[in-house]
Formats: sequence, C-alpha cells, structure tokens
Amino acid sequence: MTADETGARAARLIIAPDPEAPRLTRAVTGTDQTGAEREIRVVEERPLTIYLNAQEIVTAMTIGDYPEYLAVGYLANQGMLRADDTLTGVDYDEELETVVVRTARVTDYEDKLRRKTRTSGCAVGTVFGDMMEGLEGLTLPPAELRTSWLYALAHRINTMPSLYLEAGAIHGTVLCEADRPLVFMEDVGRHNAVDKIAGWMRMEGVPATGKMLYTTGRLTSEMVIKTALMGIPVLASRSGFTAWGVEIARQVGLTLVGRLRGQRFICLSGEERLIRDADPDSAPQEPRRSSRKAAAE
Amino acid sequence: MTADETGARAARLIIAPDPEAPRLTRAVTGTDQTGAEREIRVVEERPLTIYLNAQEIVTAMTIGDYPEYLAVGYLANQGMLRADDTLTGVDYDEELETVVVRTARVTDYEDKLRRKTRTSGCAVGTVFGDMMEGLEGLTLPPAELRTSWLYALAHRINTMPSLYLEAGAIHGTVLCEADRPLVFMEDVGRHNAVDKIAGWMRMEGVPATGKMLYTTGRLTSEMVIKTALMGIPVLASRSGFTAWGVEIARQVGLTLVGRLRGQRFICLSGEERLIRDADPDSAPQEPRRSSRKAAAE
Repeated sequence: MTADETGARAARLIIAPDPEAPRLTRAVTGTDQTGAEREIRVVEERPLTIYLNAQEIVTAMTIGDYPEYLAVGYLANQGMLRADDTLTGVDYDEELETVVVRTARVTDYEDKLRRKTRTSGCAVGTVFGDMMEGLEGLTLPPAELRTSWLYALAHRINTMPSLYLEAGAIHGTVLCEADRPLVFMEDVGRHNAVDKIAGWMRMEGVPATGKMLYTTGRLTSEMVIKTALMGIPVLASRSGFTAWGVEIARQVGLTLVGRLRGQRFICLSGEERLIRDADPDSAPQEPRRSSRKAAAE
Repeated sequence: MTADETGARAARLIIAPDPEAPRLTRAVTGTDQTGAEREIRVVEERPLTIYLNAQEIVTAMTIGDYPEYLAVGYLANQGMLRADDTLTGVDYDEELETVVVRTARVTDYEDKLRRKTRTSGCAVGTVFGDMMEGLEGLTLPPAELRTSWLYALAHRINTMPSLYLEAGAIHGTVLCEADRPLVFMEDVGRHNAVDKIAGWMRMEGVPATGKMLYTTGRLTSEMVIKTALMGIPVLASRSGFTAWGVEIARQVGLTLVGRLRGQRFICLSGEERLIRDADPDSAPQEPRRSSRKAAAE
C-alpha cells in the first residue's frame, strides 16, 4: 500500500493518530554511534490531574491529547463513573493541566482512593480498589472474529501514519469493527490509550456490541479487565500474554488473541468466536520499518 | 556466542534470570493461525502488598521473585526509606502475599500516600508525592561509558537465557559495571525490575559508583528519576525516549543512551561520559530471535 493509499484509508477513521501535531512531539538533538549530530523527534509526556466533582482522583502522565476522553474513560474504567451517571460537565484547563468531571450524582471515593494496586499495564498502571470489581456475573456478547479481519486490521494499523512510526516509545490501542479501525489512540501509557477510547465511547454514546480492541501492548490482567468492563468481547495484540490475563479472559469469556505478527497468532481464550476464513499464507507481511516486536511492550 | 558459552558467562552474574523456575511461568494451551493446538509458556503476575512498619503502602503486580528486594527498593525509590534508615526487618509472607519492611525510625506517609501520580513507566507506574522530590541539587558522579562496553553488554544481555526469551511479555533491567552485567532482574513491570535492583543494592550495601543501568524499556521521566535517585550516572536502553525523560536527564547530568540496537544508538544527554572506543561496524549483530524492537516497551 502506498503512502497516499494509507493516508486516504486512514482519513476514514473517526479518530486517527496525528503525528504532525506540534504539541505531541519535540525535536531533540544528540549524537549517534559515529559521533555525528542527530536530531530526532521524541514524544511529550505531561501530567494531567483528574478530578471527579470536588475530589482529586489521580494525576496521569500522558501525551496530552484528548484529556476529556482520558478523564471520563479512566473514571468509567475505575468504576467511579456509573453507566447511569449523568455527566453535567467535563472541563479541561490546559494551563492548570486538570480535567474536572462533574456528575449529577454526589460522589465520594475517599475509601477507594486509599487502596492502591500497581498493575502490570504499561504506564498508568494504577487500579484503585478490587481489580476484579464489576467482573462478577459479567457476560460478554457473542461476536465473530474473522482471521481475514485480524490480518487486514494488523496490516493497516501498523502501516498507518502514527506517532509510533514518527517518534517511537508510544503505545497504540485501536477500537475496531469488523475489518475497520474506528478510533486509533496513542499514548505514552497504554492504559491512557485504552481509557481515551473508553471515554470516547462513553461521551459519544457508542455501544460495545460488535467491537474489538487491538493493542500494541501486552495482554496483562489489567488490559483484559478494562476490555471486559468496557463490554468488548475481543482483545487482540501483537504482544504476548501474562498468566493472569489469560485466566481472567477465560473466566469472563473474552476472546484473547496474542503474538499477532504477519500471518502468525495464538488464541488462548474464546476460540469459539474465531472464524478462520483467511489462508494464513495470504496475510500481508509487515514492512520492516513498522514491525513491532512482541517484547514486554 | 554458543549456548554453552552464554551459559558459562551468565553463570558469572551475581543474579541472572531463571527461565526454568516453575513458579515464574505457566504452560497454557491454545490454537494458532492454522487451528493447530499450541502450548506456550506465559509469565505469572501476582499481587504483592508492601507495608512499611504498620502502614500499607501499595500492592504491586509482580512476577513474584525477590519480593524483599522489590519492597525495599520500591520504598527507597519512593523516598520512604532514607539512606540512613536502619532496617530492623524485611518479612515476606508467601501465603499472604505481603512484605513488611521495618525500620528503627517511626514512619508515617499517610499524607504522601494521598497524592498519586500515574506515570509513563511500564507497570507499577505509581509515584507518590512529587516525582522530582530528591532531585534538587543532586549531582551524579563522573563516569566513563565506553561504546565497547555498550556493545558487549547489549549482545550478552539479549542472548543470555531469560524469561523474555522463554515466555516474552516481560521487561528486563540490568545493573552493570564496565562491560559486565552484575544483576539481571526481570518482571512484568519494568519498574519492579528497577526496584528489585535498588533493593538488592540497598540490602547488600552495593554502592552506585561506577555502575550503569541497562533497561529493555522506554526512557521515560520515571525511569530517569529512579536511576538518578539511585545515584547511577548512566542509563541505556534499546528502546526510545520521552521528552521529559530527556529533559530531566539533562537537568541532573545523567548520561542517557537509547535506541541501542546492533551497532546503532543515540545519546541525548551526558555525552561527556561517552568514549567511542569501538568501531560501530565491529558491534555484534543481534540474533533474530532475541532482537527486541524499540516499540513502546
């Protein structure tokens, strides 16, 4: 696929990465192995303090785009925003680096804030209270996952212009429907990227039915839990698994596909949703430049 | 280097990865792209609750090795253990999944615990209080960083038997001296790996002078701050940079080398410590299997 075609197709996303945005990367100068001066672009990392009504909840280190989505998605994924809560305001103050999320319901999570779990998620791995909270009795909707979609999505996502290709050192999470990427969020913290998607879905009223999440990061317990709490039945990654991530996915009936690179992948949970409609040999090879290794991403 | 040579040299590390340890990985069965059944090993991820004297500080998700080092290193890197504190006990309870660190000094960090920052670090990205705390007026010792050491360390670390090569989805951090890896810690959370090294140094009384840290993960603000607080003047990674990570490294005079793969690297801070004594073309190439991409690791 040529750059033009990629651009044209990327334009069809509802939200696509914006590698040109001046606020998201910075040019820095150093030297390379030969001693030659080299200028490279690096991603920004900024604090964003999230308030729920009068209460300071957390300060996230984020690349800084879509702060409102990040705040709402974080609170929703932490169970601090209920499905039936009415948002009366979401106010971002760029100077103060704060987002205040206001609800009609009076909220108080002081006790919850006292309990802290540092998770295995990449960046922003903080979960308050019981990580499994809200998973009891959760059932995910039936869904189809065609291997032809997996191959098309992986190829398109990995070749689309992104901050990752521009500056590296950043995670991507993509909300997809069939073979189409809808919303592609990137962040220094993988969990920020997921939370931004959750916030977008919540604020735009987009249902989870028929959706899947693709992430560049590892399939850890926290990623699986977030995906399940969002009601999304399929989570795919080019990276690997942790044992607890697999265990929880099997408990809640989430389809978990990992180590998705080129034609290869492994499905460790929810096999029943998987339809092998594509000849693996027909899967597009990854261009060297955009190939990401399934390291501890 | 042959497997035997690798093993022999790895044996010279004070602490090396233990990919065979049954408690650290689990075999899980799934299917691959062809529908064939596949058994793979995945890394474990367990909660570990850290107490400082009577106070519950945090629950970390960790692979579970070296819990005492993790607890002591975490508390030290959070500034909750002072350099002059006397440890009167470090008690790990495997059943309760807790570590209680006891000090002669009476401690109370209730206020500090109220402030939470979610950082860009991979896993365990929780920093209480002011991230920059302790950095004011910090000066790192002069040191030498020879490119011949960088190339030798990167090759040896990436080809040494490890949980990463066995199961993937895990980070590594290595305490090095000249061209010798001393302590190689792996964890689902990159920050756990660093904290385990900090705890080992603290409990074994190992000084930071002449040491460098090598990490598989990104050079974020938190990684740079942790390294500086440990008094280590050099931080190298095969992964990329964030803008704030570079900024802080330059402020504290830390030598920061990133994107170190094969013969290539970029130095964005502390260039004065770098001695280019190796012909880049002489740098060993990375075996395909152990090559890690500098994605958002």
